[in-house]
Amino acid sequence: MTTFERQAVARGAGPWLTDLCRWIEIPSVSADPAHHDDVAASARYLADALRRAGFPTVEVQGGGPYLPAVYAHWPSGDADAVRVVVYGHHDVQPAELADGWTYPPFEAHVVDGLLHGRGSSDDKGNVAIHLLGLAAHLAATGRTAPAVDLTLLVEGEEESGSPHISALLSDLAGRLEADVIVISDTGIFDAATPSLVTGMRGLVSGELHVHGPDVDLHSGSFGGAVPNPITELVRILAAIHDPDRHIAIPGFYDGVDEPTDEERALIAALPFDEHGWVTGPARSTAAVGEAGYSTLERLGMRPTAEINGIWGGYTGPGGKTIVPTDAYAKLSFRLVGRQDPAAVMRRVDEFVAARAADGVTATMTWEGQGVRPLVVSADHPAMDAARRALGAAFDTDTVLITREGGSGPEAEIAGAIGAPVIFVGVMTDDDQIHAPDERAPVDLLLKGAEAVALLWRELAAVGRAALA
Amino acid sequence: MTTFERQAVARGAGPWLTDLCRWIEIPSVSADPAHHDDVAASARYLADALRRAGFPTVEVQGGGPYLPAVYAHWPSGDADAVRVVVYGHHDVQPAELADGWTYPPFEAHVVDGLLHGRGSSDDKGNVAIHLLGLAAHLAATGRTAPAVDLTLLVEGEEESGSPHISALLSDLAGRLEADVIVISDTGIFDAATPSLVTGMRGLVSGELHVHGPDVDLHSGSFGGAVPNPITELVRILAAIHDPDRHIAIPGFYDGVDEPTDEERALIAALPFDEHGWVTGPARSTAAVGEAGYSTLERLGMRPTAEINGIWGGYTGPGGKTIVPTDAYAKLSFRLVGRQDPAAVMRRVDEFVAARAADGVTATMTWEGQGVRPLVVSADHPAMDAARRALGAAFDTDTVLITREGGSGPEAEIAGAIGAPVIFVGVMTDDDQIHAPDERAPVDLLLKGAEAVALLWRELAAVGRAALA
Repeated sequence: MTTFERQAVARGAGPWLTDLCRWIEIPSVSADPAHHDDVAASARYLADALRRAGFPTVEVQGGGPYLPAVYAHWPSGDADAVRVVVYGHHDVQPAELADGWTYPPFEAHVVDGLLHGRGSSDDKGNVAIHLLGLAAHLAATGRTAPAVDLTLLVEGEEESGSPHISALLSDLAGRLEADVIVISDTGIFDAATPSLVTGMRGLVSGELHVHGPDVDLHSGSFGGAVPNPITELVRILAAIHDPDRHIAIPGFYDGVDEPTDEERALIAALPFDEHGWVTGPARSTAAVGEAGYSTLERLGMRPTAEINGIWGGYTGPGGKTIVPTDAYAKLSFRLVGRQDPAAVMRRVDEFVAARAADGVTATMTWEGQGVRPLVVSADHPAMDAARRALGAAFDTDTVLITREGGSGPEAEIAGAIGAPVIFVGVMTDDDQIHAPDERAPVDLLLKGAEAVALLWRELAAVGRAALA
Repeated sequence: MTTFERQAVARGAGPWLTDLCRWIEIPSVSADPAHHDDVAASARYLADALRRAGFPTVEVQGGGPYLPAVYAHWPSGDADAVRVVVYGHHDVQPAELADGWTYPPFEAHVVDGLLHGRGSSDDKGNVAIHLLGLAAHLAATGRTAPAVDLTLLVEGEEESGSPHISALLSDLAGRLEADVIVISDTGIFDAATPSLVTGMRGLVSGELHVHGPDVDLHSGSFGGAVPNPITELVRILAAIHDPDRHIAIPGFYDGVDEPTDEERALIAALPFDEHGWVTGPARSTAAVGEAGYSTLERLGMRPTAEINGIWGGYTGPGGKTIVPTDAYAKLSFRLVGRQDPAAVMRRVDEFVAARAADGVTATMTWEGQGVRPLVVSADHPAMDAARRALGAAFDTDTVLITREGGSGPEAEIAGAIGAPVIFVGVMTDDDQIHAPDERAPVDLLLKGAEAVALLWRELAAVGRAALA
């Protein structure tokens, strides 16, 4: 069924896409201080777009310790309108052409229906669906203000682990009241199959530094008799997983519940083509992970320990027979259930300290406070509204329930605001987020905009009382 | 006792040191193709210096697959003169100011009696002792040609593992006949205690590459369900040593003999200050190595496996939560006794292949053919001559016997030439070879020159017949 909202989305798509392209071209990499001016420029760009969209209140929040975030508010005007807070982020992952991009990562190119560029999917594309969606909502309903009280919070540090989300939420205290929180930083099962997320993994990340001799030593004159910091680093890192790929850090699994038979059955029933996933979006040759769990269980229900980067010693051409001074690794841990980020960091610290050999120091430095995992109920009326909106936008009755493997500050936002969370975003595993050649199918972004437009109508129909 | 040779060394020291400084300033890094023109310039510089010293035959050998080497020959003119081949190298380890050098590595600075600069000790300084030593020998003896038939072979690829030494030796077939081979690429026990080396470790080195997914993957969307190449790399690397730091590669110890009680007693009798060594030249906080062996045994008698460098994934500022595509490590193994480089490479290949997890490829790429270990007898008349020359130069009767932990093409040279080997070089553990701030005490280099000058007189006195 072609909705009025769909027609309105199609009419607005051209100029909206042009605006999104210009936004993508601002390299708002929060992890790199050299790009912090770009993060500020990205916030200003979004703020201008929201003003043009009609938001009466638009503010760039940058007074705290955090990089600039964008706050916008548009009251419905209807009595007892449902209050919605939308969360997304405008900062992006680092990207360099030399990493293997087909096009420069901070240029936007639409090729064969795919919008290429860093942030095209994660998360500028999935924030931008709200700009087009709101315009379509107004056009389709003939309203001059949205049918819900709409608040947007688009932060600038999500790709750095949202280290200051507490301060941001605290600075906005009293201005983020909501009956429903809509998170637009996740995806759907696949391009043909919309889905709703009922869980999101948490995250802690940091850097492990092992220091050995104070100067590089000749490995012939000293090797075998002094500790090699790279050897000590790999001994610690290799001990993180046991041979079955369970995580061997004592206490790490505190708060992790085994999936119930019912949960396992639901996951097993998903139309998941593992071989297609491995050779397609995962660009791998085998599914490998914790013994005793399926691929989808590993992704949604199980915590992980990943080494994201490693370096130390001589890495130039040829050889250099040294015992080097230092070795480093970047580590991140995905958390589930009731795992507590602070407790996990403590457990890892203890594990590292217990395994540091004589003659080296081994130190973890953590990024921020970490991110709690989030689990939400599939049975809330807001979830039903989202299911109807997504089903209509995708012309299907099948809206699956999934877990999201990634992590964001959702649990902290939900806790601070005290409202149920629904996830409306249209990323797919083919988007290559965090990787070279990140891209988003333009038609999927338009479906996302349509789903958002329909969601405001659906939520208004449910009414504030039913959501309480 | 002040020898005539010592007086002649002192007279020649000034201009000689100036020449050495200019040679050090040529960055002859064989490992880096960008410096191969400098390796050629370094060879030409040495050839000119040898011509000025009086060598009637001086050639830069560069026609083979190897970087330029220098060959020089000066016949004694005496009937049945002892024939000596001296080996050293003029290429140097990589060095960058940013690695922590006090002075630019390819400038020469003499500060507090220390000659600073890459190659000041290893090996330009220890090759240059032959220039000054020969001049002193001629001056002290009043000869117009040396008392021995003198051949110098100074190669340009030692710091890259001498990958083409066979071709070089083969190109010089018939022009390297010798009764004694003098290696000048090693050191002495300490600055006050001369010593003679009776063994030298062999070496194989290469790079381990683990490849996982074909693109960087978001660790939230994919982590835990696809193999992480860094995790797989560290699992392989950590398995190289067992908890007692024995090397756990099956067959690795083939050809390694346990030290005899007599060898252990000799080593234990050396005046070794372990605490001073650990906190001094080793710039460490603990002696750490294979269980069951002392520090000196670990350095001289035992093979090692070292990780010289490691890299993969994201290593920039902040975090990037990816499962990366590739991870790499540079490995080197020091060999002893009858260990065969080709067999060790095969054993490591098998070990890596057996430990590569599903979903990744793990491949070793070796540098060259490796270097055999060398063991020589302490009882040869040439060794006695060297003992007398060193003792006189250092004014001591104590000339220790040691093992050298480092590696060079000595075993191959000895095999090709078919003559006994003696080691005359004045490096010490304080020289920081292969590290930032490499330096050599000028007075030690002068003692080395004096020892060389005395050695030619001593060897001539022994006579060719006694050396056969």
